[in-house]
Amino acid sequence: MNIVVQNIERADPAVIAALGQCGVATVHEAQGRKGLLAAYMRPIYRGARLAASAVTISAPPGDNWMVHVAIEQVQDGDILVLAPTSPCEDGYFGDLLATSMQARGGRGLIIDAGVRDVRDLTEMQFPVWSKTISAQGTVKETLGSVNVPVVCAGELINPGDIMIADDDGVCVVRREEAEAVLAKAQAREANEEDKRRRLAAGEFGLDLYNMRERLIDKGLKYV
Amino acid sequence: MNIVVQNIERADPAVIAALGQCGVATVHEAQGRKGLLAAYMRPIYRGARLAASAVTISAPPGDNWMVHVAIEQVQDGDILVLAPTSPCEDGYFGDLLATSMQARGGRGLIIDAGVRDVRDLTEMQFPVWSKTISAQGTVKETLGSVNVPVVCAGELINPGDIMIADDDGVCVVRREEAEAVLAKAQAREANEEDKRRRLAAGEFGLDLYNMRERLIDKGLKYV
Amino acid sequence: MNIVVQNIERADPAVIAALGQCGVATVHEAQGRKGLLAAYMRPIYRGARLAASAVTISAPPGDNWMVHVAIEQVQDGDILVLAPTSPCEDGYFGDLLATSMQARGGRGLIIDAGVRDVRDLTEMQFPVWSKTISAQGTVKETLGSVNVPVVCAGELINPGDIMIADDDGVCVVRREEAEAVLAKAQAREANEEDKRRRLAAGEFGLDLYNMRERLIDKGLKYV
Amino acid sequence: MNIVVQNIERADPAVIAALGQCGVATVHEAQGRKGLLAAYMRPIYRGARLAASAVTISAPPGDNWMVHVAIEQVQDGDILVLAPTSPCEDGYFGDLLATSMQARGGRGLIIDAGVRDVRDLTEMQFPVWSKTISAQGTVKETLGSVNVPVVCAGELINPGDIMIADDDGVCVVRREEAEAVLAKAQAREANEEDKRRRLAAGEFGLDLYNMRERLIDKGLKYV
Amino acid sequence: MNIVVQNIERADPAVIAALGQCGVATVHEAQGRKGLLAAYMRPIYRGARLAASAVTISAPPGDNWMVHVAIEQVQDGDILVLAPTSPCEDGYFGDLLATSMQARGGRGLIIDAGVRDVRDLTEMQFPVWSKTISAQGTVKETLGSVNVPVVCAGELINPGDIMIADDDGVCVVRREEAEAVLAKAQAREANEEDKRRRLAAGEFGLDLYNMRERLIDKGLKYV
Amino acid sequence: MNIVVQNIERADPAVIAALGQCGVATVHEAQGRKGLLAAYMRPIYRGARLAASAVTISAPPGDNWMVHVAIEQVQDGDILVLAPTSPCEDGYFGDLLATSMQARGGRGLIIDAGVRDVRDLTEMQFPVWSKTISAQGTVKETLGSVNVPVVCAGELINPGDIMIADDDGVCVVRREEAEAVLAKAQAREANEEDKRRRLAAGEFGLDLYNMRERLIDKGLKYV
Repeated sequence: MNIVVQNIERADPAVIAALGQCGVATVHEAQGRKGLLAAYMRPIYRGARLAASAVTISAPPGDNWMVHVAIEQVQDGDILVLAPTSPCEDGYFGDLLATSMQARGGRGLIIDAGVRDVRDLTEMQFPVWSKTISAQGTVKETLGSVNVPVVCAGELINPGDIMIADDDGVCVVRREEAEAVLAKAQAREANEEDKRRRLAAGEFGLDLYNMRERLIDKGLKYV
Repeated sequence: MNIVVQNIERADPAVIAALGQCGVATVHEAQGRKGLLAAYMRPIYRGARLAASAVTISAPPGDNWMVHVAIEQVQDGDILVLAPTSPCEDGYFGDLLATSMQARGGRGLIIDAGVRDVRDLTEMQFPVWSKTISAQGTVKETLGSVNVPVVCAGELINPGDIMIADDDGVCVVRREEAEAVLAKAQAREANEEDKRRRLAAGEFGLDLYNMRERLIDKGLKYV
Repeated sequence: MNIVVQNIERADPAVIAALGQCGVATVHEAQGRKGLLAAYMRPIYRGARLAASAVTISAPPGDNWMVHVAIEQVQDGDILVLAPTSPCEDGYFGDLLATSMQARGGRGLIIDAGVRDVRDLTEMQFPVWSKTISAQGTVKETLGSVNVPVVCAGELINPGDIMIADDDGVCVVRREEAEAVLAKAQAREANEEDKRRRLAAGEFGLDLYNMRERLIDKGLKYV
Repeated sequence: MNIVVQNIERADPAVIAALGQCGVATVHEAQGRKGLLAAYMRPIYRGARLAASAVTISAPPGDNWMVHVAIEQVQDGDILVLAPTSPCEDGYFGDLLATSMQARGGRGLIIDAGVRDVRDLTEMQFPVWSKTISAQGTVKETLGSVNVPVVCAGELINPGDIMIADDDGVCVVRREEAEAVLAKAQAREANEEDKRRRLAAGEFGLDLYNMRERLIDKGLKYV
Repeated sequence: MNIVVQNIERADPAVIAALGQCGVATVHEAQGRKGLLAAYMRPIYRGARLAASAVTISAPPGDNWMVHVAIEQVQDGDILVLAPTSPCEDGYFGDLLATSMQARGGRGLIIDAGVRDVRDLTEMQFPVWSKTISAQGTVKETLGSVNVPVVCAGELINPGDIMIADDDGVCVVRREEAEAVLAKAQAREANEEDKRRRLAAGEFGLDLYNMRERLIDKGLKYV
Repeated sequence: MNIVVQNIERADPAVIAALGQCGVATVHEAQGRKGLLAAYMRPIYRGARLAASAVTISAPPGDNWMVHVAIEQVQDGDILVLAPTSPCEDGYFGDLLATSMQARGGRGLIIDAGVRDVRDLTEMQFPVWSKTISAQGTVKETLGSVNVPVVCAGELINPGDIMIADDDGVCVVRREEAEAVLAKAQAREANEEDKRRRLAAGEFGLDLYNMRERLIDKGLKYV
């Protein structure tokens, strides 16, 4: 029942990198407003932005044994995504594990639980999006699984899915949809630039988006 | 039932600016400890301080149509105050709306819901106090109202009331009470300076505020 | 029933300082994963690290009278630890009290409630770990006690216990156990340095900690 | 600043009683989906239904002195509505106060804080909608006000407004709007009866509400 | 992008019924402690127990249009499972919809949001497990989807999966695993009966489960 | 480090029983408003009232091994008090453990975590006060301790302390203070009876407690 899946498929690194340039809000819109993890997932420091390929971990509450197992499966450009099997705020991950991750080319951690050593992680510029910060340690007694589908912060994550993360939060893009989503996200960005310019010049969104007639039709009254 | 009130009264800009100099904690004390919004309202970045005149928005959950309507009502020195009609954490507001606000002289946003593009908003120095940060987008399907009284984060806000906001949170001052509150706040600040000097010199608050006798009367025992 | 205990024992300042060098996560591990305050206790600014001797306060909700009483009991190297007698988020403490604390050699505040004037406190580099930030003021009407055992954020704190606090949170070390915990924490740190070096060189935790055989024994399958 | 308003206007008792027959969900719909208190306000026992005229209390955290003051203002058919000036879960109210309320014709309590003696209150059939149940006692040291506008669980309540409460929660109706809301609520109830009969006979809501065409227009696909 | 899947596969009704006899705790254990929805999902009344086949709904916040669409897809023995696309507490469902459900053979509702008319629903014995109870109404303006995979209260639910629900909460069983899980659950129940008898006779779990030696090996000390 | 303390002192059973007659709110007041556990501790069914002697358990998150160890230490009239070493909502306890408890004369459970099989526990009339209800199972891999001091739901509990629990929540009385607290609680009850009679007759609390003069002195204005 407890397994480690060793050979997972990953998306094209160039596509992943390009998605990261677009950011969470744009990607989320581009794929039809799906895939956003719960808003309680916050970065441990501001300014980090990344896109990376998910290595998933299903772990028991208060037990980080599987993190060690997962790191062996990490390749350059991967990110760990940990979901506990029941709600937990313990600090599963600290600076030693981050050191090991960086040595393997790992890019960061997304964890629906706690993280610690955040001062060191910040100095190392190892980005983490977590539910909480907690120095509470964990044990290594009970198995979990690596690279199985997990639900993390309310979203299904498959191994090899692409995680986009920045100051706005975390969004998942399905591996098979990555190229299509990227095309839409880039189109969206181009389009936004024109809007930004017109709004900055003082044009109203009401006119830019042709909203006035529909507002009146719906019954809005100006008094 | 859904209305936009176009002509609202505003307080004297000089009074508003002076209240902003005093800060939330002082103003809140000066007006008898009323008007403070719930403590979950947090700034998206530290260090912003402002006072501005409220343009209020009552909006459905997950629908930011009325934000576009409200921006047309914004004058130089105004701030948007958005209250959803039922609890919602979606990101109603991002960098395009902020661009539009800044083009109209708008100073910021206070929202009992979510905001997104916080990295861009921080670079633009567009301050927001919100319940949450979320990339979750919204629709434009259902009407709300602009410049009606709303309850935002537990406090009644009328259009034209003055919002004071800094790292401590957000406080509302009634438009009609603005001058009286300012006078008390400034008196308080002058008074605090003397206290600060005496406390820094090592005097005890117990002596400065003459508390010793009353403590003993109430029954405090030193052992 | 309401008392102020005036003569409390404190740990050796050198031991306290050395514990502060180790940080919360290390100390917490070193003493067998006990003594960690709830994860909702967050620093008002990042980067502060300290260890200090606790002066405890049991205070009624919304009443900070006992803070003034407690400051008279503060000696150089002490920290205030305030626990309300029922849940409260009010701002018990601001920049005037911090000024008084600094004048007496006080090092900071740990409070299972709210704090205000956080901009000023940050400028003063007066560190606070609190449940919330709130400008809500308090009264001075009801007695509490100073230097009695309290439960703060889920942990028992005795006057004279040592509080370790940094970006990861807050941990308490019993006064009588301070030296023994320090020895273990320092041993732990030495040991971690070697591990960090080996992990940075690419060695797996699975090998470094000899986990492979036990994982297989427990039934983990690689697929 | 702390006042007791003694002569407040109340709505027609017959109108109040008729609103109570309609229940919270119907009244809330009838007045355009406004006035609903936060969903965390729960009845201490199931099955109570009432409509009553509000006597409002603004009280400090952990201080129930004003409850005693308010009861003197209660007339037959009134209900107490208590809002603390900052968040509090203490048990402001128990069986002795309920005994006093019942002796004056008071019908119940709506409190954005805690209540205690719930076993006794249930036996007395004294209904309470509260944020929490807590045996934590309160003091009588600090003034508040009675019969001033308050914000309770996110809604503005004026003295003399009508509170509707049942197992679904609590809704406020403005005194001046009571008759108009009642007319709409009763029309709504009549209309619902016909719908219920048709749905019970197996008709689809899609047909009863003529939704099919609009769904297809919006782009819904059946696969 | 918004679809209604009309032909979904369902598990054998006899298997579903038999799983319902086992209850949530037993089924959850039998399938290896997976599939449990978040503990905040609570029944609106105590004592209901059911197992039913899921018809899933992905709905926008504050919009219950898709519930009407979904009811047309309901067959005898089905249950609705609604997940909002962002967190929402509104009351999507009341007694009229329950009447329609019962007319179609629908068994209940599992909703990661709010429900209303709970007094009527209780009288109708229409069971609901929800995140909250709220009279807050919804609109019918924005599409969602029916019978697509959803994440509800932290668990992935596919259309046709089996929902087990009772006073302990809600658990999902994959359609394809239903028979295997049933076999294990029934074996578990048989086994528990013997344990219950021995424990009732005063035997210790320490002996029944042969724990004593392993406890001592791990280092437990009796003092 | 992990120990089981086998011989603990208990209070006089007659004193315990008499405290149970007084109930939580009265006992809490009688001992000076201390010892109340957090209000989130709720009974799994209404109407249970008890007082019992604490057998304490410090347990890892998601691991109920120590419950089995603790039951061997239970004597007639005891209650289990479980505090996890970090926050956890798992269901540590179900009907089999309750059967074992009842066979040993155990009276109930107080747990700052989850419980399951609540339907069975209700039928058995085995009372539990818990933080949550959850079917989530636990493992038996990591040691904890039995009959050591623990902090449970914010209060320090020593083995042998007396737990008072009813619909209002849970309160702890120190073993050494049990008789003194009982005397005060009984005096309080006698006194309350007279007050209840006078309030029921229509006398105001304002007069009964002689509050009028003090209110005016503090500055209350009647308008």
